[in-house]
Amino acid sequence: MTVTSPSRRAASETGDPFLLTPGPLTTSRSVKEAMVHDWGSRDAEFLRINREVLERLPAIANAAATHVTVPVQGSGTFAVEAMLTSLVPPDGEVLLLVNGAYGHRAKRILDIARRRALVHETAEDTPPDLAEVERILVAMPSITHVFAVHCETTSGILNPVAQIGALAAKHGKSFLLDSMSAFGALPLDANAVHADAIAASSNKCIEGVPGLGFVLCRRDVLAKAKGNATTLVLDLHDQWLAFEKTGQYRFTPPIQVIVAFHQALTEFLAEGGQPGRGGRYTANCRLLVDGMRALGFRPLLPDALQAPIIVTFHMPKDPRFVFQRFYDSLKDRGYVIYPGKLTVADSFRIGCIGHLGRAEIEGALAAVREALAEFGMTDAAMAA
Amino acid sequence: MTVTSPSRRAASETGDPFLLTPGPLTTSRSVKEAMVHDWGSRDAEFLRINREVLERLPAIANAAATHVTVPVQGSGTFAVEAMLTSLVPPDGEVLLLVNGAYGHRAKRILDIARRRALVHETAEDTPPDLAEVERILVAMPSITHVFAVHCETTSGILNPVAQIGALAAKHGKSFLLDSMSAFGALPLDANAVHADAIAASSNKCIEGVPGLGFVLCRRDVLAKAKGNATTLVLDLHDQWLAFEKTGQYRFTPPIQVIVAFHQALTEFLAEGGQPGRGGRYTANCRLLVDGMRALGFRPLLPDALQAPIIVTFHMPKDPRFVFQRFYDSLKDRGYVIYPGKLTVADSFRIGCIGHLGRAEIEGALAAVREALAEFGMTDAAMAA
Repeated sequence: MTVTSPSRRAASETGDPFLLTPGPLTTSRSVKEAMVHDWGSRDAEFLRINREVLERLPAIANAAATHVTVPVQGSGTFAVEAMLTSLVPPDGEVLLLVNGAYGHRAKRILDIARRRALVHETAEDTPPDLAEVERILVAMPSITHVFAVHCETTSGILNPVAQIGALAAKHGKSFLLDSMSAFGALPLDANAVHADAIAASSNKCIEGVPGLGFVLCRRDVLAKAKGNATTLVLDLHDQWLAFEKTGQYRFTPPIQVIVAFHQALTEFLAEGGQPGRGGRYTANCRLLVDGMRALGFRPLLPDALQAPIIVTFHMPKDPRFVFQRFYDSLKDRGYVIYPGKLTVADSFRIGCIGHLGRAEIEGALAAVREALAEFGMTDAAMAA
Repeated sequence: MTVTSPSRRAASETGDPFLLTPGPLTTSRSVKEAMVHDWGSRDAEFLRINREVLERLPAIANAAATHVTVPVQGSGTFAVEAMLTSLVPPDGEVLLLVNGAYGHRAKRILDIARRRALVHETAEDTPPDLAEVERILVAMPSITHVFAVHCETTSGILNPVAQIGALAAKHGKSFLLDSMSAFGALPLDANAVHADAIAASSNKCIEGVPGLGFVLCRRDVLAKAKGNATTLVLDLHDQWLAFEKTGQYRFTPPIQVIVAFHQALTEFLAEGGQPGRGGRYTANCRLLVDGMRALGFRPLLPDALQAPIIVTFHMPKDPRFVFQRFYDSLKDRGYVIYPGKLTVADSFRIGCIGHLGRAEIEGALAAVREALAEFGMTDAAMAA
């Protein structure tokens, strides 16, 4: 084990540190190089590229026959706000299943939009209580929609979207899913899980750059959403109508971001779509968790609840372990990790997603081992 | 005069057609190449770059001491909607000075947000009637804000923002300015024109790529805007607070777009800032208008009302002149122009902005001459 030196710093194809974060993440060189051109926003070639992006996305959730893609300029949260404010009518009421920051954010969006919202909250390491969810749906006929987060990146927990969707369908509720950090990596059949809408973004598991959110919407649900929206720019119904009529965005699209996303989708399909992409992330996650456990770190979640997206680790209690030094030491070696977001425990997070494989995860584990050695530790366990 | 062939097609540094459009526009190769990297959204280097972007923008409107930049993910319209919904309180009322599509769009935003709005409309080739504006301000004490569009790209008209701002100030109204297509090209002193907020975007006269809007806000006006917003993502006050507290975006920023915008600002300053940039555009515009007039085309606007951003030309009435053929012929030669948006006259538009100078405008004029020759015309005037 040697002390790090600049010459040993790992780097991506474009010389950047590897991002072991929940996204924005490491993308391929070819995805980024697709952006080194200019197009007009009404250019026929750009509109063809954009149309292919919109057509490819529903197929990833086996929903090409039922759902359409409505893109939203901005980040994933713009897509979630667009979904909630465009699809929940003023007299609607949403049951939110919350076990982390993204569930709470949906509540805040609905409060600002003056939509009624009821929260079923569980701890950040605990899936929703499905019996309690059903009890609420039976007791509260005023509820019109159920909202859940697929993979809550606060902890990395995988929520039981199939069971949640089945309960929503059984009780005649519309199911809205925030699949931001999971879309493309985890198996998802929009119709099997009864999802009327699924929100995600360009810079997660499809491995594009940030700047575009999107919502896959059931066509018949969207058709009934006219007039719900509380804004012009986030109105999914109006955005969809414009595409149906003109094939164009209503307002200037982030052209280079979309062209990069198109390239990312091409590479996603070449990797075998969701099974291929999800398989690589699952292997990354297993290697990471096993390697970190061998170094004495303790993941927050049991394996059965861990989505192969981002892993939360308990912070070692050894006073020699200082998180900022650990973070900086890993970054000096070319690996960027993520601070924790838990309210219940001191923690940090390492992502498994992005243009990364076995070599990068092994490199990150070696960097963790070297950082511990710098602190005079051989193992994080004795103090975890 | 020869028939076009692929080998004669003009092209930008990256092989793309020149965009003579109101933006997205032709950017430099170095602006686009700045995007071929990955950064995490909390990365110190990215945050430093972003901070420089936010600091450089108010200085362009001589407002570094009074105004702060609040960025908004998305297009320019996202910034305009954020400005109107964050700064106009629920009991406010806005006088909108409308002479084109972007003024009407502001009205639609306010209607959706349920903010009272009164329209003073003039024809698309006519500035607001300032005497009438003052009469309205005197007669309607309920008005709290005045909204105007700096350069209305519907026609390319320059609106008298200094006089409008002076009237607003005289009558104690807050002045909100959509300077989208003018910002950085036309002289603008935020305090001299009494503008409490100025909205613009990355992909206009600063010559970045699309994906980021921004609003320059008077700090004291912004500080009083808490709770006005009708959404989470477009809340300027909340976005500003996050920067004050953490230096970070609340939601994933379009990182590559921002880094490209930083490079575009560096090139903007190297060109001499607004005087340099505006000088080049003014020369482009003069060359274009003179050249088109010499070919018999007739601009919509008199020179005194023409902003050096985009020029509207009347459509020649000669049946041999078919706009789609004209557009395609120019595009084949490497120049993309823009359809008209006027409601009052059949027209098309040619932009003067972007990474273009004398050579490109002369090339475009040669292409126009060749296209006319293809149609068997030597001059557009006989039928204009």
